[in-house]
Amino acid sequence: MEWEFREICIFGLGLIGGSFALNLKLKGYPGRITAVDIDPSAIEKGIEMELVDGGSIKPSLVESADLVVIATPVGVYEKVIEGFKPYLSEGTVVTDLGSVKGSLVYRCEELLSGKAPFVGGHPIAGTEKSGVENAVENLFDGAKFIVTPTERTDRVALERVKGLWKRLGSEVIEMDPFHHDRVFAAVSHLPHVVAYSIVDAISNLSLSLGTDLFKFTGGGFRDFTRIAMSDPVMWRDICIENRENILSSLREFKRSIERMEELIKTADGEGLKEFFEKTREKRRVIEK
Amino acid sequence: MEWEFREICIFGLGLIGGSFALNLKLKGYPGRITAVDIDPSAIEKGIEMELVDGGSIKPSLVESADLVVIATPVGVYEKVIEGFKPYLSEGTVVTDLGSVKGSLVYRCEELLSGKAPFVGGHPIAGTEKSGVENAVENLFDGAKFIVTPTERTDRVALERVKGLWKRLGSEVIEMDPFHHDRVFAAVSHLPHVVAYSIVDAISNLSLSLGTDLFKFTGGGFRDFTRIAMSDPVMWRDICIENRENILSSLREFKRSIERMEELIKTADGEGLKEFFEKTREKRRVIEK
Repeated sequence: MEWEFREICIFGLGLIGGSFALNLKLKGYPGRITAVDIDPSAIEKGIEMELVDGGSIKPSLVESADLVVIATPVGVYEKVIEGFKPYLSEGTVVTDLGSVKGSLVYRCEELLSGKAPFVGGHPIAGTEKSGVENAVENLFDGAKFIVTPTERTDRVALERVKGLWKRLGSEVIEMDPFHHDRVFAAVSHLPHVVAYSIVDAISNLSLSLGTDLFKFTGGGFRDFTRIAMSDPVMWRDICIENRENILSSLREFKRSIERMEELIKTADGEGLKEFFEKTREKRRVIEK
Repeated sequence: MEWEFREICIFGLGLIGGSFALNLKLKGYPGRITAVDIDPSAIEKGIEMELVDGGSIKPSLVESADLVVIATPVGVYEKVIEGFKPYLSEGTVVTDLGSVKGSLVYRCEELLSGKAPFVGGHPIAGTEKSGVENAVENLFDGAKFIVTPTERTDRVALERVKGLWKRLGSEVIEMDPFHHDRVFAAVSHLPHVVAYSIVDAISNLSLSLGTDLFKFTGGGFRDFTRIAMSDPVMWRDICIENRENILSSLREFKRSIERMEELIKTADGEGLKEFFEKTREKRRVIEK
C-alpha cells in the first residue's frame, strides 16, 4: 500500500498535532511534514524534535501541501481556514483532528466550497498533557479514528484520509457528524466537565472544612481527576461548540446523581448494592 | 524497634485484610497471623497464599490473639464485635481498617467497654479490586494511615497500633473521628458515588441514543471510572454509615456542576477558561 499525500501541513502544533507528526515519522511516512502555529516556539520545538521538516507562523506555508490537517482548538477553525484558504493549491484535501463535528463540519465545508474538499476527523486518543513537547509515541495505534462524512463529502478525499489513518494503525469508523457529537458529549465531554467540577467542589469543601483536602487524596482520586488537567482552551471551545449535547448529557448525569442521593438519603441498602453491582458490571466490560 | 503484638487475628480476609497480612509478612513480622471470615474459601486462599498461618469461620479463634483487626465492611462491625467479644483474652487490643469512623468508633468503644481498648484506624490505600486473591504488595508503604483516638482511647494501645503501621511504612496521622468522616466523604466517598453515577448515566444515554457508548470510551474514561468497579457491599455500607457527610459533599458538588452548566449554557468563554485553569492548577498540586 502506497502512502497517501506528498506533503502534509499541520495547523496547530500541540500535543495532538505533534503526536500526529511524530507517528507519521515513526511509521515511515516518506513525504514532507510542515506545521503552522501562532506560537513560533512550538514550531522551533517541533523542528528541534525532528517531528516536522519545516514550519512557519504564516499560513502561506500551505501552498506546497496536498493535505492540510487542522489540529487547533475548535473555536478558531473558521479563522484558521480563512487564513490559509487563499494559499491552497488545487487538489489539496483539508481534514481535522478536533473533538467536535456536527455543524462545524458543514461550516468548514461551506467555507472551503469550490476551493478544497473537507473531511472531518477525530482520533479517539490523547492525554491530559498539552504542547508539542508532550507528543506521544504510538498514540493512534489501535485507537479509533472517527471520520464524519456528509452528503457533500468528496469520496476520493474521504478514502485517502481513511487510508492515512489506517497506516497509523487506527481503526477507522464512519459516523454522522451530529451523532458523533451526541456520542462524545456523553463519553468524553461529560466526564471532563464532571472531573473539573469535582476538583472545584473539593477545593470549596477544603475552605469550608478548614483542611487542605487535596493532602488526603489517594491513587483512586488521582486517576479519577487526571483529565481535569487537560488544556483549558481546548475544553472551553468544546464546551461552547457542543453545548447543547453536553447540557443534555449533564441532565442525564444529574438524574443518576439524584437517584444515588435518594438511595443514600433513605439508607436503602438493597437499592445501593444493586446500583453499585449494576454499574460495576457495565464498567467491567471496558476493562482491558 | 521491636514489633508490637505476638499474634494478630484479622476479621474479614478480603483485599484490605489480605494486603495487611501480606505486607506484615513481607516486612518480616515475626508473630503469628490468623484470619476469621464467614467465607471458608477466603481462609483457604489466604493459607494457600501463605498470607495467614491459620484461619477459621469461628470467632473463637481470637482467643490466642493480642491484636484483633476488623477488616470487614463497616456495616457488620457491631455484629462482628458481638461475635468475638466473649473470646477476647485480657490485654488484647482491637483496631480496624474501615473507611468510616465518626460515631462508629464510639459504638465500637462502647461495645468493647471493660473488655478491650479500641483504636479506630483507616489506611488510605486500596484498589478497585476485591478479594484476598488480589492482595497488593507494598500497598501501605508511603501511604497515610489515619488513627482516630477519642477522649476514651487507651494511650498505650494507641501507640502500639501506630507503631505497627509505622513498621508497615505508613505515615501515621491522628484525626478526630468526626473530622475524618467529613474529610473522606469529600475526597473518597464523593468521587466513588460520582464515578458510579457517571457509568449509570452513560448506560442510560446508550439506550436513548441507540448506541453502545461504552465502545467509544478511551483511556481517560477508563481512568475516570476505574473506582466504579469497587466492591458494592463495602460501598453500600460506607454510603449508609457516612450518609450525612456524603450528602453534604454531594450538595457542594452539585453547586459546582450547576456553575459549570451555567457557564456552558451562556457560552461564557472567559468564565469557562478561568474555571478550567483554576481547577487544573489545583489538581496539578497532587500530581506525582
